[in-house]
Amino acid sequence: MTVRQTDGAFADAHRRMWRELLPVGRYQGSGGYRRYAWTAADAECRAWFQEQAAARGLAYEVDRNGNQWAWWGDRQGTDAVVTGSHLDSVPDGGAFDGPLGVVSSFAAVDALRERGAAPRRPLAIVNFGDEEGARFGVACVGSRLAAGVLTPDQAAELRDAQGVRLPDAMERAGQDPSAIGADHERLARIGAFVELHVEQGRCLADTPHPVGVASAIWPHGRWRFDFAGEANHAGTTRLEDRRDPMLTYANTVLAARKKARLAGALATFGKVAVEPNGVNAIPSMVRGWLDSRAADEATLDALVAEIEKAAGERAERDGVGLAVTRESYTPVVDFDLGLRDRVGSILKESTGIGVPVLPTGAGHDAGILSSAVPTAMLFVRNPTGVSHSPSEFAEEEDCVAGTAALAEVLESLACR
Amino acid sequence: MTVRQTDGAFADAHRRMWRELLPVGRYQGSGGYRRYAWTAADAECRAWFQEQAAARGLAYEVDRNGNQWAWWGDRQGTDAVVTGSHLDSVPDGGAFDGPLGVVSSFAAVDALRERGAAPRRPLAIVNFGDEEGARFGVACVGSRLAAGVLTPDQAAELRDAQGVRLPDAMERAGQDPSAIGADHERLARIGAFVELHVEQGRCLADTPHPVGVASAIWPHGRWRFDFAGEANHAGTTRLEDRRDPMLTYANTVLAARKKARLAGALATFGKVAVEPNGVNAIPSMVRGWLDSRAADEATLDALVAEIEKAAGERAERDGVGLAVTRESYTPVVDFDLGLRDRVGSILKESTGIGVPVLPTGAGHDAGILSSAVPTAMLFVRNPTGVSHSPSEFAEEEDCVAGTAALAEVLESLACR
Repeated sequence: MTVRQTDGAFADAHRRMWRELLPVGRYQGSGGYRRYAWTAADAECRAWFQEQAAARGLAYEVDRNGNQWAWWGDRQGTDAVVTGSHLDSVPDGGAFDGPLGVVSSFAAVDALRERGAAPRRPLAIVNFGDEEGARFGVACVGSRLAAGVLTPDQAAELRDAQGVRLPDAMERAGQDPSAIGADHERLARIGAFVELHVEQGRCLADTPHPVGVASAIWPHGRWRFDFAGEANHAGTTRLEDRRDPMLTYANTVLAARKKARLAGALATFGKVAVEPNGVNAIPSMVRGWLDSRAADEATLDALVAEIEKAAGERAERDGVGLAVTRESYTPVVDFDLGLRDRVGSILKESTGIGVPVLPTGAGHDAGILSSAVPTAMLFVRNPTGVSHSPSEFAEEEDCVAGTAALAEVLESLACR
Repeated sequence: MTVRQTDGAFADAHRRMWRELLPVGRYQGSGGYRRYAWTAADAECRAWFQEQAAARGLAYEVDRNGNQWAWWGDRQGTDAVVTGSHLDSVPDGGAFDGPLGVVSSFAAVDALRERGAAPRRPLAIVNFGDEEGARFGVACVGSRLAAGVLTPDQAAELRDAQGVRLPDAMERAGQDPSAIGADHERLARIGAFVELHVEQGRCLADTPHPVGVASAIWPHGRWRFDFAGEANHAGTTRLEDRRDPMLTYANTVLAARKKARLAGALATFGKVAVEPNGVNAIPSMVRGWLDSRAADEATLDALVAEIEKAAGERAERDGVGLAVTRESYTPVVDFDLGLRDRVGSILKESTGIGVPVLPTGAGHDAGILSSAVPTAMLFVRNPTGVSHSPSEFAEEEDCVAGTAALAEVLESLACR
C-alpha cells in the first residue's frame, strides 16, 4: 500500500493510543475486556475519547443518546463525513472489536493533518454507546436510538442482570436519560459514515489483502426462550414426576445446531440463566438466549420458526412451559452501493490492487445507520478469525494498513 | 395420635416460633428462602436459635465447627440424647426443610416440661451449620467437619461463587475458622441422635400416617463437569470452526437423564455456569453440576461412569475439553437398626398403629452422624412431595403430630 506518510508514523500513533486504552476494563482472570455500557470501565473509555479530541483541538460533544463526537470543521455543517466505531465490549471480549475503529480514526486524522489536508466537508469521529448490548441485552443502543428504531419507551424497559434500568444506569453515569430518542436532524447532516472494524472471520486471512470492504450484514436477531418447570428436590423426586426445564433447554440447544447446519445458517445458545441454580434442585426456570443469523431474512425466519417448533414439542413432552420473546431483530443490510464502489476505487487507486468485498454475520452501528445515511465499512484482516474472545488478534502492520486505507478514504471524501 | 398434651398447645408453640422465623431470608421474588451459610440471613436464623435456647434456660454453645447447641441437663455428660436439624436453605427453598426439625425440637422440649418430664440423660437441640451446601458446594459441612469426613484442609479450599473462601466467610460471621475439624470427643458423648424432617417425597401422602421412620439414605454425590471450548463470535464463526461447549453440556444433560432412567436411579443437572455467558459469544467454558443418587453404591458408581463416558465421547466430537471432579460423595446410610426399632415401638405404642419405614434419596446431617452415633429420622407427611421449592408444604396438623411423636421419642429415650 502506497501512502504519503511513513508506516512508522502510523504505527507510533497507534501504539501511543493503545498504550492508554489497553489497560481499561481488562479482566485479569481471562485477559479479555469487560467494558459494559455506563459502567466505570465504560466511563474510562469515554474519558479517553474526550482526551483524544481535546489533544487534537477537535470540538467535543455528547449527543442526546450518549454517543460521543469529535468534530474537525463545522459541527453544525451538513454533508459531514463521519468515521468511528465503539469502545464497549462483550464479556471477556478482545482488544480490537470496536476500539480498532476509534483508534484508527484518530490516527487517520493525525495523518491527514501531517500531510496538510484540510476538510472541505465537516469531518467527525464518533464513539457509539452500548454497541455490544452486553449489559442490557440489546445491541447498538446508541445508534438504534438515534435512528429511531429503538424508542425511548422500549429503552426504558431494558434492565441489566441486577435489575438496574437503562435510564437509571445512564443517569448514574451522568447522562440525562430524559433526552434520549430519534435524532433525525443530526443524522440528516451526515453525508457518509465509514466504520473500520477488525474482521470477524477468515475471509482475508489467506489472501494478500490486509483490508476489505463490506458488502452486506446478514439479518440477525436474539430470541429469549423461557422454559418454565417446577422446582423440586433432585434427590427425592422420581424422574417421572419431574417437570425439568433443563432437559427441554438441552434438547433445544442441540436442535438449534442441527437445524442451523441444515439451513446453512448460524444458531447459538451462548447465554443461559437458571433458577434457582442449585446443585440439588430441579430448576423452576431455565432461560436460554438464541442468537441466529442467515444470509437472507426468509432463511433466518424459517430457521427460528423451526427451532421454536422443536422447543415447543419437547416442552410438551417434558411438562414444561415455553415462552419465546424476540428481543432484537436486524434486517439484512446492503451497504450503499455508490459509497462502497467509491471506497473500493479509492483503495484500488492507492494500493494498485483490487480490494475484496465481503459480507459479515456481525451487527454494527454502521448497519443501523445505513437506513438513514450512506454507509461503508472497512475490515482489517484477522489471522485466526476469532473475535468476542480474549484471543482476538490483528497484526500491527495490518492495523497500520487499515489506518492508511481509512485516511485515504477520509481525504478523498472530505478534503477534495 | 394420643398425646398427653393437647394438640392445641403444640400448635400454639409451633405458630409462635414460625411467626418469628418465617420472614427471615425470604426472597420476595420467589416466595422461597435464601438462607446461605454465614450470610446475614443465616446470622438471623442463628440469633433466633440462641434466643429460643435463652428463653427456655437451655445452656447455649457453639461448637468448633459452627454448629449451635442448646442443652437441657449436663452438657458435659455422656450418653446424651440429641435432636435438631438445620436452618439454612437451598436457593429459593421451602420453609420446612430444616426449620421444621428445629422448631419441632423446641416445641417437644416445651411439651416434656409441661408434662413434668425431666431428662435422666443430657438432652440437646442442635442446629447444624451449612447443611444444604448452597453457598460452598458441599452439603452438611458442619456435621461432616465434626465427624472428620471433611478435613479442615478440604474445607479451606471451598469457595463461593464470588470467590470467598469458607474460612473467610466464617471469620466475617464471627466464627473462628482456625478451630474447625473433627470433634470425636463431642460425638462420643452422644448416645442417640434423632432428626425430624419434612418428607421429600410422597411415601406418606396417600396413607393414614402423618409420621414415618427412615430406613436408609441412598448413596449420593455431586460431580462437576467442566466443558472447555473456545470463545468466539456467534455471528461470524462457521459451525464447523466452532468448539462450542454448550453442545457438549446439552448432550450430557440428556444422556444423564436417559441413563438414570435405565438404571432406575436419579441424575440431575440443576446448576450451570457459563463463561462469558454473552448472547453473541460462543462460550469458552460451561460448567454443569451433576447430582446423582441410587439405591446402592454399585448402581450409582456405574451410572456416573456411564455419564462421564457419554460426556467424553461427545466432547471429543465437539473439540471440547472435559474434566470431571467429584465434589462430594456420601455412601449408603443404613440407620441404626436398634434405635430405629425402638423409635418404631415407641410410636406404635403411643399411636396404636404401626409406623411406616421408608428410605430417602436426600442427604441429611443424620446420615453423616450415623457413622459415629446411633441415629434415627422421623419424616412428617408432605402432601405434594415437593421440596427444595417455595411450594414445599406440610399441613399444620401433621407438623403437630410430628412434634408429638418427637416428644414421645425424646421422653422415652431421655426421661425414663
